[in-house]
Amino acid sequence: MVIARNPEKVRDIIARARQKQKTVGFVPTMGALHQGHLSLVRKAEKECVFTAVSIFVNPAQFGPEEDFSRYPRSFRQDRILLEKEKVDLVFCPQPRIMYPEHFSTYVQESALSDNLCGRSRPGHFRGVCTVVAKLFNIVQPDKAYFGQKDLQQAIIIGRMVRDLDIPVKIRICPIIREKNGLAMSSRNRYLSSEEKVQAAAIYEALFCARSRFKSGETSALKLKNMIKNNIKAKAKKAKIDYISIVDYETLQDVKKIERKAAILAAVYIGKTRLIDNIIIKP
Amino acid sequence: MVIARNPEKVRDIIARARQKQKTVGFVPTMGALHQGHLSLVRKAEKECVFTAVSIFVNPAQFGPEEDFSRYPRSFRQDRILLEKEKVDLVFCPQPRIMYPEHFSTYVQESALSDNLCGRSRPGHFRGVCTVVAKLFNIVQPDKAYFGQKDLQQAIIIGRMVRDLDIPVKIRICPIIREKNGLAMSSRNRYLSSEEKVQAAAIYEALFCARSRFKSGETSALKLKNMIKNNIKAKAKKAKIDYISIVDYETLQDVKKIERKAAILAAVYIGKTRLIDNIIIKP
Repeated sequence: MVIARNPEKVRDIIARARQKQKTVGFVPTMGALHQGHLSLVRKAEKECVFTAVSIFVNPAQFGPEEDFSRYPRSFRQDRILLEKEKVDLVFCPQPRIMYPEHFSTYVQESALSDNLCGRSRPGHFRGVCTVVAKLFNIVQPDKAYFGQKDLQQAIIIGRMVRDLDIPVKIRICPIIREKNGLAMSSRNRYLSSEEKVQAAAIYEALFCARSRFKSGETSALKLKNMIKNNIKAKAKKAKIDYISIVDYETLQDVKKIERKAAILAAVYIGKTRLIDNIIIKP
Repeated sequence: MVIARNPEKVRDIIARARQKQKTVGFVPTMGALHQGHLSLVRKAEKECVFTAVSIFVNPAQFGPEEDFSRYPRSFRQDRILLEKEKVDLVFCPQPRIMYPEHFSTYVQESALSDNLCGRSRPGHFRGVCTVVAKLFNIVQPDKAYFGQKDLQQAIIIGRMVRDLDIPVKIRICPIIREKNGLAMSSRNRYLSSEEKVQAAAIYEALFCARSRFKSGETSALKLKNMIKNNIKAKAKKAKIDYISIVDYETLQDVKKIERKAAILAAVYIGKTRLIDNIIIKP
């Protein structure tokens, strides 16, 4: 496993892999790896000959009041995990490499980015799109792997790739959950054990809403209220940021569920903002 | 010479050239080709084994009041010119191919794009950056060729390429001029013969200012006033949009010329907006 700290080294190594006709799979991460990330890595290994992972806590996607500086960083541990997975290349640049002096170009998706997390985190998806476009240009993978956990992100990246003609295939992989249902997230490290128990209420509520939908409830309002009440009843520390039901293609809120949709939740448990979602199809 | 009307065909042909280890040079244009464009094509031919040219009048870089619909289109003539130059590939997509339904992702450079033409043409460089990023992703050239005539554009593209890690080398090539000094431009076709004579005043004034600078005048204000007076004296139909002297790196106005700078002019001759520039070095 090669550790590259600058784009030139990545390009060199990828060029050599390409000369051997190897297909390249890529998993961009912010580190603090968990089983969710590793499931993406395994999918990449399965589908591609060469696997690259990036570890970069991207300052451009954090708001000024957000947790950039305290975001968990565990490079030693991450490195061991990726070595075990037989990853070929890890790209872990410093911020000054990714955002040199006078950096002034951003990629902005403007139809899917304003709702949901975009509403609570202005500028977040501009930062995500910019760094992912950069990483794609550096690694030039055939396929890139994103978790359904960050569903809005994955869908926005898919739109960006289509719109800008980036030659990469985007794969969205299932959410990996703790035994109690809590979606795996690097931010779960912030949670106390009591908070972890309460955080399970998010998925329970989503799961329950899907069951209701399957039994015939198509009113988004009713399902959302049910979710809110469920979470409040089970998690006293919960503060709901949003519970939304949106069309899967447009990410715009729907009133009645008539085609593929997603129920998304962003909930603070104590000081930690957690997100989760579930996809529903009529 | 292959004519491709969709990105898939371009990718196919480029992939085949790559298999033969050919280097790819690329000249993006809006068609209505003149000797300026052809000088870029010749430079590409000289430096690369495979040469691609795009012809696409990009709606995203025209303002609602601008000349998108009447912009000169002369595909037959362009095709003959490019065949003569032994160009390998011409990419000429329809707007609906480049901007499919629900297109929503744009590339925005934000430090160099507000001054000069960005001031007169809001959104223009967002449209330029977006289409050029797309074209680079489709053609994936080793080198791309831009004319110094559109100096702000060329410098912004250079910044975009650096910031987004696009693996292409940007070459800025000299302005090609008519015998009377007028910078070649597709928009010169709008000019009456009388206007063409008057339009020569723009370069004359820039040239004259550079002479003054060489003789010791470093005050931007004095040089700009000289240029304005010169143009007004010689071209009654001229309406000045801007005359600016800016730092070559930052494109910000300077008061005193102490390092590499550019004098840029945007002038209406009748209804036609023309631009020109000249680079000065202490």
